[in-house]
Amino acid sequence: MASNSFGNIFKITTWGESHGKAIGVVIDGCPAGLEIDEKEIAAALALRAPGRNAYTSPRTEKDLPEILSGVFEGKTTGAPISILIPNKDVDSSKYEPIKDLLRPGHANYTWLEKYGIFDYRGGGRSSARETACRVAAGAIAKKLLDHHGIRLVAYIRQIGSAEATIAGDDFDAIHTSTYQSPVFCPDPKAASAMAELIEKAKAEGDSLGGVVEFMALSVPVGIGDPVYEKLEANFAHAMMSLPATKGFEIGSGFRSVAMKGSEHNDRFIQDAGKVETQTNFAGGILGGISTGMPIVGRVAFKPTSSIMRPQETLTTTGEKASFQLPAGSRHDPCVAIRAVPVVEAMAALVLADALLLNRCVKL
Amino acid sequence: MASNSFGNIFKITTWGESHGKAIGVVIDGCPAGLEIDEKEIAAALALRAPGRNAYTSPRTEKDLPEILSGVFEGKTTGAPISILIPNKDVDSSKYEPIKDLLRPGHANYTWLEKYGIFDYRGGGRSSARETACRVAAGAIAKKLLDHHGIRLVAYIRQIGSAEATIAGDDFDAIHTSTYQSPVFCPDPKAASAMAELIEKAKAEGDSLGGVVEFMALSVPVGIGDPVYEKLEANFAHAMMSLPATKGFEIGSGFRSVAMKGSEHNDRFIQDAGKVETQTNFAGGILGGISTGMPIVGRVAFKPTSSIMRPQETLTTTGEKASFQLPAGSRHDPCVAIRAVPVVEAMAALVLADALLLNRCVKL
Amino acid sequence: MASNSFGNIFKITTWGESHGKAIGVVIDGCPAGLEIDEKEIAAALALRAPGRNAYTSPRTEKDLPEILSGVFEGKTTGAPISILIPNKDVDSSKYEPIKDLLRPGHANYTWLEKYGIFDYRGGGRSSARETACRVAAGAIAKKLLDHHGIRLVAYIRQIGSAEATIAGDDFDAIHTSTYQSPVFCPDPKAASAMAELIEKAKAEGDSLGGVVEFMALSVPVGIGDPVYEKLEANFAHAMMSLPATKGFEIGSGFRSVAMKGSEHNDRFIQDAGKVETQTNFAGGILGGISTGMPIVGRVAFKPTSSIMRPQETLTTTGEKASFQLPAGSRHDPCVAIRAVPVVEAMAALVLADALLLNRCVKL
Amino acid sequence: MASNSFGNIFKITTWGESHGKAIGVVIDGCPAGLEIDEKEIAAALALRAPGRNAYTSPRTEKDLPEILSGVFEGKTTGAPISILIPNKDVDSSKYEPIKDLLRPGHANYTWLEKYGIFDYRGGGRSSARETACRVAAGAIAKKLLDHHGIRLVAYIRQIGSAEATIAGDDFDAIHTSTYQSPVFCPDPKAASAMAELIEKAKAEGDSLGGVVEFMALSVPVGIGDPVYEKLEANFAHAMMSLPATKGFEIGSGFRSVAMKGSEHNDRFIQDAGKVETQTNFAGGILGGISTGMPIVGRVAFKPTSSIMRPQETLTTTGEKASFQLPAGSRHDPCVAIRAVPVVEAMAALVLADALLLNRCVKL
Repeated sequence: MASNSFGNIFKITTWGESHGKAIGVVIDGCPAGLEIDEKEIAAALALRAPGRNAYTSPRTEKDLPEILSGVFEGKTTGAPISILIPNKDVDSSKYEPIKDLLRPGHANYTWLEKYGIFDYRGGGRSSARETACRVAAGAIAKKLLDHHGIRLVAYIRQIGSAEATIAGDDFDAIHTSTYQSPVFCPDPKAASAMAELIEKAKAEGDSLGGVVEFMALSVPVGIGDPVYEKLEANFAHAMMSLPATKGFEIGSGFRSVAMKGSEHNDRFIQDAGKVETQTNFAGGILGGISTGMPIVGRVAFKPTSSIMRPQETLTTTGEKASFQLPAGSRHDPCVAIRAVPVVEAMAALVLADALLLNRCVKL
Repeated sequence: MASNSFGNIFKITTWGESHGKAIGVVIDGCPAGLEIDEKEIAAALALRAPGRNAYTSPRTEKDLPEILSGVFEGKTTGAPISILIPNKDVDSSKYEPIKDLLRPGHANYTWLEKYGIFDYRGGGRSSARETACRVAAGAIAKKLLDHHGIRLVAYIRQIGSAEATIAGDDFDAIHTSTYQSPVFCPDPKAASAMAELIEKAKAEGDSLGGVVEFMALSVPVGIGDPVYEKLEANFAHAMMSLPATKGFEIGSGFRSVAMKGSEHNDRFIQDAGKVETQTNFAGGILGGISTGMPIVGRVAFKPTSSIMRPQETLTTTGEKASFQLPAGSRHDPCVAIRAVPVVEAMAALVLADALLLNRCVKL
Repeated sequence: MASNSFGNIFKITTWGESHGKAIGVVIDGCPAGLEIDEKEIAAALALRAPGRNAYTSPRTEKDLPEILSGVFEGKTTGAPISILIPNKDVDSSKYEPIKDLLRPGHANYTWLEKYGIFDYRGGGRSSARETACRVAAGAIAKKLLDHHGIRLVAYIRQIGSAEATIAGDDFDAIHTSTYQSPVFCPDPKAASAMAELIEKAKAEGDSLGGVVEFMALSVPVGIGDPVYEKLEANFAHAMMSLPATKGFEIGSGFRSVAMKGSEHNDRFIQDAGKVETQTNFAGGILGGISTGMPIVGRVAFKPTSSIMRPQETLTTTGEKASFQLPAGSRHDPCVAIRAVPVVEAMAALVLADALLLNRCVKL
Repeated sequence: MASNSFGNIFKITTWGESHGKAIGVVIDGCPAGLEIDEKEIAAALALRAPGRNAYTSPRTEKDLPEILSGVFEGKTTGAPISILIPNKDVDSSKYEPIKDLLRPGHANYTWLEKYGIFDYRGGGRSSARETACRVAAGAIAKKLLDHHGIRLVAYIRQIGSAEATIAGDDFDAIHTSTYQSPVFCPDPKAASAMAELIEKAKAEGDSLGGVVEFMALSVPVGIGDPVYEKLEANFAHAMMSLPATKGFEIGSGFRSVAMKGSEHNDRFIQDAGKVETQTNFAGGILGGISTGMPIVGRVAFKPTSSIMRPQETLTTTGEKASFQLPAGSRHDPCVAIRAVPVVEAMAALVLADALLLNRCVKL
């Protein structure tokens, strides 16, 4: 039990508070011999960075990760990889006036009750800033997936009422259009509608929820471990450990409820000597183990809790209070957008771990 | 890493195949001093048992669990509790004709690819029979929750297109009406519609999906551990480790996506000196930690993969084949129904573990 | 955390009390495809069985292990292997008169203080009976070692003041002479001296300590994981988790303290194209990782706590008391002897786990 | 499985190489509310620092630990505590000439074989430098022990042939005389003999082994968890995970082998209403659980592998080679001395973890 760790073999431990000196991650169990470049990690972090466009928070901090261990002459050595990301652009003074308020939708009430102490500055340890560490670790996990020919992408599927249409599983097309889109949505028409919704919500000082979808291609058959380490269980765990998540689906998801078995059963077929299924309601997983078909999952993010409107609440001592975040507070109107690279990172961590575990199952 | 174990402090390890001699569970970490009665475990298993009514499979086996260790003079001793459940009513001959077929929606293809060997009889280790062990362990976890005043119930929220209306959080009312209902649905009108849908699907040799909801009341504030042991992450992991699950939600779930932050932020209020929230879109959890409000989650189950219709598939050697399960095969037209006590058990295991972990977080 | 489990990938969980219905072990993580025969496990248990000769306790129970899961058509399937060993020859009545006494050298005082409840019958969960489960699991681990060409043996190195001379590392010679010896000592002269010492101690109602040594040959270079999973650390953990152990050594052990570095540094040499060391003070491990040389470790067992003499003690309520175990009580005058197959089993478990972990360390 | 982590609830993960930018440790699971001061950690590190006196290596680096997270307003928050220790005084050039040699007694051969890559500078990850992280973490664990009234000390028991006499368990006397001694030995007469032996070995370019003993007082009854988390098993694991260790003993240790049960059985007595034992051969632990008596253990360290004499060896490609470390190389003639604070730290980590685990064992 270590509540700040994730994974079995490819295991990460993250640390750090939003407004502390730095945040960081230790990756234990990465195989030796993997080529690693700090710049690739920085590039991954840049995708998650705030201030990337008008639809994310204007915090201007550029994350420059530093690899402190585990890499020698450009390659991993099998030793733990420690990555440190300094916190540079922090201004805790804005949190002073609200530090004694129970913030609606936030974690300060529950953390304070649990621990009797809470680093309120920027949300402390409960801040989504922690997810930068996941992205850094995920960048390394993705290198391992690359090595095994696995391709992985995440994108916005829905924001508010605007839903994207994703046709097929053409990785390159989806990947390119996702990263060309300011809202990480590969469907340009839907992306426009989303941008409009965000502008409107922003103008109203309000916020929106969203759905992030991830897709993994060329995952070999046989990845994932029964019973409690099922691939979908580990994806669900990974995704629901992200701040602001309210739901997870694999394949057909909640839509499967209204389907008949005769529809939902994906039929096995041969394609060029390879076993495939004609449909993929399973989302690439049967019995917790990969089928070789695309793995597709979705994560629901609630609307951002930090809104720019007056709110009623209580103080930590139980008195009624009303408050409004100061103008110029840096908050994303829709956290799902910046969560895209984080979802991708978590999917990469789950798959990297499952790939390694799979080496141990046969004589 | 142990793929057949779940939990940190209150930890279970399950074993056994559908058509082996027995299945069982070892519970390690249950506190000493808890009164345990084999009959209570048998009663919990009876709720999950097939053949309970017309809407579940007619397998007539009555599960008589045997406690082999860890209980002395009626109380837990702190030693591991081993529970064995014999497999009595097994007939593997029906699986002979289909043992070389890739069964649509089933795990035999992926398991065979992974391990190079598969106990095909009744689905072997991949069978939902394994969940009986979870129910047995959950019965003991529930005793621990009882001791701490926590109340827990699960019920059918939806089957096919028929959705139940659950008003409020009156535990006794929901509990009573759930267990009076042949489909475990506390809303009698919806329950009738569900029963009809099932009858129809059965007549067509087809199957239906469903949604199981669980609710935990009187959970103290502060249960659940950041960052990777968030309560909702552990619930998600627990539920998505169940066979046939395709989705998980906490609180507002996927519905939150179309909401605004100003709507979704639950307002903190005082009620009789106790901090509560006016609404509960959070589902009783903020930042991974319980708020003291009802915890509400939902699990989507796909339509049963075993259907009584002809199906096309491949053999394990890649040849085309068609097959039909023999008349009289014992399969649930909707697995969600029998999953109700299993979901409840998994929720109990998550909460019991979190309760114990919470003893270690302060000086 | 699960205090009744051992191992990372090849993981065992044991359960059961000395005088309960049964004891057992669940082995999770054994690779699929290993041929397993119940008889081999029974044979391993027979070596540990009491009543094997005059120098061990006369308890006549013959352990007949039953494999309940994880093996299909004679081979492991990758599913957890559950082994049950019934407790047949138990008579708890002898423990009645002493159940309220703090037994010198025994665990009942500390367990009672810890848990507030103690199954006193035969020592309950604290009994060395638990080690039968280790032997059963170790028999399977040894099959995996066999598959990889690793050979493992344990034997008595010392009893009381009588110490054996072990020349070289001729596996077959050591193995054969060990299992021909009634005290598991491959040095026949020392074995005679040991037998005499035991007879004498027995006649005096007293008991003796012993040292068990284990040797693993043909372990490939590179097994064992830095930093906290060093091979010697895991051996130490494994051995010191056995009842009655007071010390552990690897290679030169405590003897190294009085050596100079210039003596102790094993010189690397080539032998037939293979890197070896001229001496092996390291005991086959450098930096936690196997060198390819024989791995040699030793475990110190205290003299049996159950003696046939009057003893002074306190009752559980703190009053002075004197007691004597009834004539005919079944206790080994030297627990080290029956510990030989247990030490071997634990060494096998450590090596099997390390072998599997080693599959994950390189690209 | 994470080979760079130790502990269950109070869990550490260390990272870093001897000549990398920094080393560090993440402590997860430390209870909230503990007062922590960077200076206390620095003070603990100073005791382990090289160059402290003539008997340890002259490396002059002063370790200035930096707490990067988990502490707010001087107190732990329950979040992970990340401590970073920069590597300042590193000169890797001395390792250039020997980087292709198999170093006798060192880990470079086995690591290279295992990973296919090895950071040879200063021993890389296999360096004892890693133990500075254990000392930093141990300083925090000791604060938790202090809070519970537990007192802990380690000291040199033996160097080469010189053995100290430790009378009784007067903590203050032992503690004071240990830290006044340049060789951390509380027996001044033995300390002088040890200093002489070290001077002699140094003059000969040779090295010596040593025994470090630790003693924990006022440990409450009931700490430690059966079966595989026995206190002595965890101490053994902790200590044998240290570089250069060859043996571990608890209480009577290997000496118990030549004792009779009638001698070794510690008799229970009452002292001022408290249950004690007249002798303490058990070393404060029965059945893996603390008795309330002093816990006493010992760790054997081999003579330092780095010696200042010519040595014969092989190159990494298998050719014969002879080498001598350059004059002025910084190596301890007896690693046991600087290991004293490290052994103390590991004992503290084991006890802190066991203390927290013990909160979960009863209703």
